[in-house]
Amino acid sequence: MTADFQVSEPAVAPQGRFVVLEGIDGCGKSTQIEALRRWLPTSGLLAPGVELLVTREPGGTALGAALRQLLLHPPGEAAPEPMAELLLYAADRAQHVEQCIRPALAAGHWVLSDRYSGSTAAYQGYGRGLDLARIAQLEELATGGLAPDLTLWLELPLAESLRRRGERPADRIEASGEAFLQRVIEGFAALAAGRGWRRVDATGAPQQVAATCCGLLAELAAGSPP
Amino acid sequence: MTADFQVSEPAVAPQGRFVVLEGIDGCGKSTQIEALRRWLPTSGLLAPGVELLVTREPGGTALGAALRQLLLHPPGEAAPEPMAELLLYAADRAQHVEQCIRPALAAGHWVLSDRYSGSTAAYQGYGRGLDLARIAQLEELATGGLAPDLTLWLELPLAESLRRRGERPADRIEASGEAFLQRVIEGFAALAAGRGWRRVDATGAPQQVAATCCGLLAELAAGSPP
Repeated sequence: MTADFQVSEPAVAPQGRFVVLEGIDGCGKSTQIEALRRWLPTSGLLAPGVELLVTREPGGTALGAALRQLLLHPPGEAAPEPMAELLLYAADRAQHVEQCIRPALAAGHWVLSDRYSGSTAAYQGYGRGLDLARIAQLEELATGGLAPDLTLWLELPLAESLRRRGERPADRIEASGEAFLQRVIEGFAALAAGRGWRRVDATGAPQQVAATCCGLLAELAAGSPP
Repeated sequence: MTADFQVSEPAVAPQGRFVVLEGIDGCGKSTQIEALRRWLPTSGLLAPGVELLVTREPGGTALGAALRQLLLHPPGEAAPEPMAELLLYAADRAQHVEQCIRPALAAGHWVLSDRYSGSTAAYQGYGRGLDLARIAQLEELATGGLAPDLTLWLELPLAESLRRRGERPADRIEASGEAFLQRVIEGFAALAAGRGWRRVDATGAPQQVAATCCGLLAELAAGSPP
């Protein structure tokens, strides 16, 4: 038997920088990503020719956009069971890593992603109570071992998240209840400690949070190549 | 942390019978499943109250129907990369096992499925060359260890499959080429040997093949409960 293609590995080690923002809804990820998208290209941190790819999970690819719809707004009877949900997030991630993140890093660019594998561990593992070892297995399959160079956890207490959400309708994940969200927050805290993420206090004004995030990206850029 | 739900396991061992038909396109699975669907309820093999659930992969659930579309007829740029494809089949299977197969078996019914995990091993493993150990990991995650009581492999040579397909347009999987399909056939042969599947010569007339299939189901019904 000859294999026509294998799970691909990058031909060379990625040279770019892979930055992820994690946190519960309402923590300001979107606002901060928009701020970093505007700031980073003018910051002087990127060498000439180095670009910034801003992306997200789920939904960073064409396939992922369809999966995002099934995960967050499934029609009628189609709401995924816990294991199916876990596998769909992994499928979205595998496609995202293969089509977007690895090629950008291999070309020396920066990638800024709104969520990555930490969210699966926090929501499906700590939140829903799925086995963390199984989640780790799937993370390895989906990412091929590709870990962010820097993860910023925008830390926000539950009460503040609920206050910020206000009257906006909850999506399927958000609708899982407050006890669920509290477990997700505790999961993010455990992951931040275990994986060396940088905690960013997200209760402050957006400009203040952005200043902290920019400082951490500047530190990353100043460090030796990953 | 308290978990509000876990990967579910059946409260009692399944009491029904789980039968799967495997084989390449053109082998007559659909025809045979239709024949068995008509025959089994009138065969006297099913105890009173025992029903027959006829289903398929991918697409045996509402979620699965959406995934089937993405797998076989993805729009534009959305064709899944090999690992994403594998994870999508696993997600379809997890939902199928959880929502359809386990409940039917637990209620004592028979389940007849057009494809199951053997197809993933044959197409993605032997066909596409993805790592068989990874595929086995995912099979365990998706099925929770639920194996068919009987798998019928409708064995058809490549040339006969191509002849039967004729001018009908190929779907995305079928379009992968003849060398690919030949590897899939060899994969089915290896799986049949390794997993104790029953080989059924699918080159004969449909009525002849159906007689063989019915005989094997009668054997299964006569055996001691699984």
